[in-house]
Amino acid sequence: MNHQTFLALACMALVANGMSGAEKLTSPDGDISLTFELRDGRPTYFVDFKGKEVIAPSGLGFDLFSESGRNSFDQQGKKAAADALSLKDGFELVNTTRDSVDENWEPVWGEETLIRNNYNEMSVTLRQPAFDRTMVVRFRAYDDGIGFRYEFPGQPNLNYFVIAEENTEFAMTGDHTAYWIPGDYDTQEYNYTKSRLSEIRDLFPSKINPDNASTTPFSPTGVQTALQLKTDDGIYLNIHEAGTIDYPTMHLNLNDTTMTFHSWLTPDNQGRKGYMQTPANTPWRSVIITDDARDILASRLIYNLNDPTKYEDTSWIKPVKYIGVWWEMITGAGSWNYTDDVYSVKLGETDYTKTKPNGRHSANTEKVKRYIDFAAEHGFDQVLVEGWNEGWEDWFGQSKDYVFDFVTPYPDFDLKGLNEYAHSKGVKLMMHHETSGSVRNYERHMEKAYQLMNDYGYNAVKSGYVGNMIPRGEYHYSQWLNNHYLHAVKEAAKHKIMVNAHEASRPTGLARTYPNLIGNESARGTEYQAMGGNDKTHTSILPFTRLQGGPMDYTPGIFEFDLSTFTPGNNSKIASTIPGQLALYVTMYSPLQMAADLPEHYEKHLDAFQFIKDVPVEWERSVYLEAEPMDYVTVARKDKNSDEWYVGSTAGTADRKSEIALSFLDPGRKYEATIYAEAPDANTVDGQTRYTITKKTVTSKSKLSIHELAGGGYAISIKPLS
Amino acid sequence: MNHQTFLALACMALVANGMSGAEKLTSPDGDISLTFELRDGRPTYFVDFKGKEVIAPSGLGFDLFSESGRNSFDQQGKKAAADALSLKDGFELVNTTRDSVDENWEPVWGEETLIRNNYNEMSVTLRQPAFDRTMVVRFRAYDDGIGFRYEFPGQPNLNYFVIAEENTEFAMTGDHTAYWIPGDYDTQEYNYTKSRLSEIRDLFPSKINPDNASTTPFSPTGVQTALQLKTDDGIYLNIHEAGTIDYPTMHLNLNDTTMTFHSWLTPDNQGRKGYMQTPANTPWRSVIITDDARDILASRLIYNLNDPTKYEDTSWIKPVKYIGVWWEMITGAGSWNYTDDVYSVKLGETDYTKTKPNGRHSANTEKVKRYIDFAAEHGFDQVLVEGWNEGWEDWFGQSKDYVFDFVTPYPDFDLKGLNEYAHSKGVKLMMHHETSGSVRNYERHMEKAYQLMNDYGYNAVKSGYVGNMIPRGEYHYSQWLNNHYLHAVKEAAKHKIMVNAHEASRPTGLARTYPNLIGNESARGTEYQAMGGNDKTHTSILPFTRLQGGPMDYTPGIFEFDLSTFTPGNNSKIASTIPGQLALYVTMYSPLQMAADLPEHYEKHLDAFQFIKDVPVEWERSVYLEAEPMDYVTVARKDKNSDEWYVGSTAGTADRKSEIALSFLDPGRKYEATIYAEAPDANTVDGQTRYTITKKTVTSKSKLSIHELAGGGYAISIKPLS
Repeated sequence: MNHQTFLALACMALVANGMSGAEKLTSPDGDISLTFELRDGRPTYFVDFKGKEVIAPSGLGFDLFSESGRNSFDQQGKKAAADALSLKDGFELVNTTRDSVDENWEPVWGEETLIRNNYNEMSVTLRQPAFDRTMVVRFRAYDDGIGFRYEFPGQPNLNYFVIAEENTEFAMTGDHTAYWIPGDYDTQEYNYTKSRLSEIRDLFPSKINPDNASTTPFSPTGVQTALQLKTDDGIYLNIHEAGTIDYPTMHLNLNDTTMTFHSWLTPDNQGRKGYMQTPANTPWRSVIITDDARDILASRLIYNLNDPTKYEDTSWIKPVKYIGVWWEMITGAGSWNYTDDVYSVKLGETDYTKTKPNGRHSANTEKVKRYIDFAAEHGFDQVLVEGWNEGWEDWFGQSKDYVFDFVTPYPDFDLKGLNEYAHSKGVKLMMHHETSGSVRNYERHMEKAYQLMNDYGYNAVKSGYVGNMIPRGEYHYSQWLNNHYLHAVKEAAKHKIMVNAHEASRPTGLARTYPNLIGNESARGTEYQAMGGNDKTHTSILPFTRLQGGPMDYTPGIFEFDLSTFTPGNNSKIASTIPGQLALYVTMYSPLQMAADLPEHYEKHLDAFQFIKDVPVEWERSVYLEAEPMDYVTVARKDKNSDEWYVGSTAGTADRKSEIALSFLDPGRKYEATIYAEAPDANTVDGQTRYTITKKTVTSKSKLSIHELAGGGYAISIKPLS
Repeated sequence: MNHQTFLALACMALVANGMSGAEKLTSPDGDISLTFELRDGRPTYFVDFKGKEVIAPSGLGFDLFSESGRNSFDQQGKKAAADALSLKDGFELVNTTRDSVDENWEPVWGEETLIRNNYNEMSVTLRQPAFDRTMVVRFRAYDDGIGFRYEFPGQPNLNYFVIAEENTEFAMTGDHTAYWIPGDYDTQEYNYTKSRLSEIRDLFPSKINPDNASTTPFSPTGVQTALQLKTDDGIYLNIHEAGTIDYPTMHLNLNDTTMTFHSWLTPDNQGRKGYMQTPANTPWRSVIITDDARDILASRLIYNLNDPTKYEDTSWIKPVKYIGVWWEMITGAGSWNYTDDVYSVKLGETDYTKTKPNGRHSANTEKVKRYIDFAAEHGFDQVLVEGWNEGWEDWFGQSKDYVFDFVTPYPDFDLKGLNEYAHSKGVKLMMHHETSGSVRNYERHMEKAYQLMNDYGYNAVKSGYVGNMIPRGEYHYSQWLNNHYLHAVKEAAKHKIMVNAHEASRPTGLARTYPNLIGNESARGTEYQAMGGNDKTHTSILPFTRLQGGPMDYTPGIFEFDLSTFTPGNNSKIASTIPGQLALYVTMYSPLQMAADLPEHYEKHLDAFQFIKDVPVEWERSVYLEAEPMDYVTVARKDKNSDEWYVGSTAGTADRKSEIALSFLDPGRKYEATIYAEAPDANTVDGQTRYTITKKTVTSKSKLSIHELAGGGYAISIKPLS
C-alpha cells in the first residue's frame, strides 16, 4: 500500500466512524463503557459503570526526553534539551478498529484450571501531523474492568525515543477511600493505609519506612499499584498494570486538588524513564470495576491482558510446598554468615576453612539433614536453604560489586551430599541466590549458577535483591531492572528452573507468559512479623492489591508467636493465630507455599499442622465467599487432583463472624469438614496458639458460622466421605 | 603480633629511620632521588634528577565520598553527606620499609625477549590517629623513572570506601613544553598539541573534537596520560599510570598558576570516582625521567610496575599480522550494514533474508574469500572481517541496548564455509565484536560469542566500544568500564582468545599480566586519515605517549592516498608516504600489525609491499636510534626468529635527514640492506607513492644518511648475507 492509498483509506475510515463525535467501547455484559475522544488534540477517555461515571475524562500521552550533550562544551546539545517534545497533544484521529474475543485458556498453574478471556476491543490510531508521528491506543472492555495500552508502530519519525514521563491519567469522581502504600522506587514492603484520597498527603510522612534496606519515595501523594479504591456509593476500582516488559514500573501520583491520578514511571539513574524502539508498546494500564468486592478476587483481568505462554513445554513447571532454613535467621536465632571473624570478604581470597565458625550458621549439613527428614516425613516437596554460599559476612549495605558467586558453599554445607540425601528421600533442595542488588555480578555468574543447579538437581531458586542496586543509582523498579528480572526468568527457563524473585518489581501477570516465575515477594511479607510485625489488616488487603499481579511468596505458617524463644529480647509481636496462619494457605493464592516455622514448632501442634500437610498447591476451581478490603477475605478452593475442598478466611479490621454456605460442594454428596478455628478464649496477643479442631459432616446445603479474630482467621478442609 | 607489640615495633622503626626528617629513595644509578615527608600531616614527595628538582613538593592523598541518602526524606543521609572526609591530611608516619630488586623477566611478546626490572623501593606507612586509619604509599625508583601507589591494608575503619577524588599532585618546576591531548572521559582520539603549559587553557577549546562518537571533556586544563613533557633545560618527563585494575582511569588537571598537575579520576554516572574494599591498592602513578628522549622509548617502566602474568599457559598467545575487510568501509566505499531498507533492527525479529541487500555490504562471502586468498598468498596470519553480523543498520547513536548478538551472521556471510576455506589455506579469520558501548548486552552474550569463536576456529577478536556507554551515563574510562574491559579479557583467556579492544581505556601495561590483551586502539588511529586526516607529527609522538601503556592497533600500511578512488567526494588527505607507512611497522611496536589497505592497492606496489610481508611481529631486541617527541623516531629491531634486522623512521615536524649507524649489527658480518625511502621528488601531498627501493651491502660499521619527509619516513630490512 502506498502512502496515498493509505491516506485515502484513512479518510474513509474517518467518515465511516463518524469522526465528529466520540468513540465508545462497551463490555460484553454492557455494564462498563469507555469513551475515547480527542479534546483539543489531547487523547482523552472516560469510563462509566452501570450508568455512573467512574473515571472522569482523563488525558493520555507522553512527554519525550530530548537527549542533551553531556559536556559543557556541547551548546547544540543544550539547546536541543530545551525543546520539550510532547507526545500528548496535537493529535488527530486517523481511524478506529474494533474486535471481540471470547475464549478460554488453561494456565500452567492458578486458582482455576480454565480462565475465560472475554472482551470487546477498540483501537484508535492517532497522528500528530506536525511531526508525522503515529500512536495507537488499544482499549479493551471486560465485564470486570478495562485495560488499555499505547502502541507505537515502526516509523521513521518515531523510531528510537526516550520517555520523560508517561501522562496517563485516572481522574477520580470523588474523594474516594483508598487502600494505599507509599509510592517508592525501591520497595513495596509497607503496611497499608486506608484513608480518603484527600488524607494521603498528611498521612504520607508517617507511612514511609526510612529503615527499609532500600527506599526512595518520590512524592507526598505518590502511591503504588495495584491500588484499591472504593467510592462512597459502593463501587470498587482497582488500578494496576499488566505485562510490564522492558519498561519501568508505573506508580500513581495524586493531584489531590482534582483527585486525578497521574502515571509516574520509575526513572533510571539519569532521571529518564523509558528507552523505546518502535515498533513497541507500553504495558497495559488496567482498572477493575465492580460493586462486589469478591469480583476483584475473582478477576483475571491482569492475566487476560498478558500474552499466552511463550514456552512450548511447561511440563517441568510444578507448584511447590516447601520448608526452609530461614525463619531462624530472620528471628535472629541463626545467621546466614559462617563466621563473625571476617568483616570484609573477597571471594576466592578469603579462606573460610581458616576462619572460626560462629556456631550460629544455620545452613549447616547436620541441620539441613534434619529439615530434609522433616520434609520427607510430612510430604513437603522442597527445603529452601539460605546462607549456604560464601559471602554473607559483608553482603549488605557496602555497595559491593562481587558479593556472591552463587556456586561456592560454606565449608559446613555439603552441597553434593545434601542433594543426594534429599533426593534419596524424595525431596529437593531449593536454591537461594541473594544478589544484594548487584545485578551485573549476578548476570556474570548466572549461567554457571543455573548450571550448578542442573548438576545437583535443584529446579527452583529463590532470588533476592536486598539493598541499593548496582548499577549504582539505579532503582529496583526501573526499566533496566525490569529487563534484568525477566532476563533471569528467561535464562532460568533454558535450564528448566523455576524462579521466586524477592525484592523484584511487583508482578504484572507476566507469569502467564513466563510461568516459571512461580512467585515474587514485592510486598511486606511474613519476615516483618519478626521485625515489628504486620498490621492485622495486612492479609485481608494483599489479595486485593499485591496479589492481583501474581502470586506472593508470603511464607505463612507461623506457629510459635513468642519470638523471644528464638532470641532473647526479640519482642516483636505477631498479631495472628494458628488458625489465621492456616487460612493464608487458601486466601493468599500461590503455587509456591512455604511452611515458614521451625520443625520443632510444628511438632508441638501436629494436629493443626495437618492442615498445612493436607492443603494442595494446585487448584481446579476457586469460589470467593466473602470479601471486603482490609476487613475480611473468605475463599473456598477445590483441589486439582481430588474432590477435596479447602476454605480459608481472614479477618482484618475487627473480630467478626464469618457466615458461609457450602453450596459449592457437589449436591447430594457428604463430606467431612475439619474446621481449624480460634478457641473461644483465643486472642492475637497471647492466645495465638489456642485453637479448636472440629470435625463435622457437611453437604452442599450446609451453612457455617465461624467466629474469627482480627488478624486471625480459620481454615477448613472438606473431604468427601463417599 | 598483638596491637601493643605492633606499636612498639612501629616506634622503634620511627627511631631507626630518623623520623624527624624526610625519607629519601634513590634510583640504582643514583641519578634519580625521591624524597617523602609529611608537611603538616599532608603526605608529600618531590623528585630530583641529576641534582635538579624535576618534581617540586607535591601532595598525596584522597577525598572520600560520604554516602548520602538518595531520597528527600532522609535527613540523616543529607547530614552525613555534608561531612567531608579527608584522607589527605592529619597523618603521622608509622614506619618506613625498604627493598631492592634486580631481576629479568621474559614477556610473552614485546620489543625484546628479556626485560630488566631493577629498582629500589621505599614503603611508608601512614596513620590518621583521628580516625585510626592506615594508608601505605609504596615508592619505587628506577634508573628511568619513578612509580608509586597507594595501598590500603584491611582495617575496620577503612573497609569499604568511596573515592570523591584522588589528590595526587605532580608539581612542575617551570612552564614546560607539553605534548598533550584534551582530557576526556570518553575518547583519546585526538591529534596532539605541543605547547607551553601556560598555553593549554587558551588552546583547549580549539583542540576538542565535539564530533567524536562520544566525548566528554571536563576541564579547560585537563589533559590525558601518558603526558610527555620537556623542560627548558632538556629534561624529559613522562607521566602515566600502570596496572589500572578495578579503578578509574586517571587524567591530569593543570593548575596553570602553580604549574601543578592534579590527578582527576574518571567519575561514574553518579559522579563518584572509585569504590574500594580493603585490602586494596590504587594503580601505580609513574614518571619517566631522562635527558635522552630515546630512553623514553626504551623504558619498560610501565610493564615493570605491573604484575607478572597470571596465566600458567601462554603458548596459545601468538603475535598476528593481518589484513581485513575494513578500510573500504572506513573510506565509504563499502558498508558494514547489509541493507539500506531497514532503519530499525530488532534482532531475532528482523528477517534479513527478506530485505533488499544494498550491494555495498563488504563482509560478503565472495569478497572475504578473495581476502583469504590474498592473505594466504602473502603470508598473513589472519583476515579481520567487520560487519559480518546482524545489527549494523541502526547500531550507532540510538542508545540501543540489544544492538548485536555477536553470533548471527548476515545472510551473505557463510560463517562455517569461510572459516573452513581460511583454515584450508593456513589462514584464520579474525572475529569482530562491536558493542556500540552496550556492555551489559555484550556481557550477556559474551560466553556464547567466545564459544562460537572456539567452535569455528577464531583465536582473536577485535572488540569495539563506539559511542556513548550503556549503562547510560557511564563513561568509557570509569571504574565500571575498566572492570568490564578486563572481564572481557579474562573471560577470553578461558577460551584461549586474544583481545584487541578499540575505544577501551588507554592501556596501562596490563598486557604483562594478561598477555592475551594483544592490542588496543585508545588513540587516534589510521581511520582518521579517511576522516580529515592525522597530523604529520602524530606517529612521531604516539610512541612517547599512547604506546607507553601497551601496543596500539594503529593499522598502518596505506598505499592508496587518493580517497576519492573509494568514494567520490572523499577529499581527506593523508599526509604520509608509502615509505612512511612502512616505517610504522617498526616504529609503532605491536604484536598485532595490520596491512590496512586493499589487496588491489598492494598489488600495484608489490615491491614496497614486500617490506610488510617481510617485517616480523616478534622481536628479540630493539635499539632506539633517534628520538625527539613529534620530530622523529628511528628504531632498529632484530627479528626473534632470525638474524634479520628492521629499521623504521618517521619524521613529524619537518623534513629531515636521518643519520644512523648500524653498530647494532653483528661485528664482522655482512648484510644486505633494502632501503625503502621517499623518492627525491616525493612529497606528502600528491607524491606519496613515489619511492625508491635500494639494496646495499652493510656491516656494523656502516652509517646511513636518509632524507625523510615530515609525515613520512623510511624503512629498511637488513638480512645477513652469510
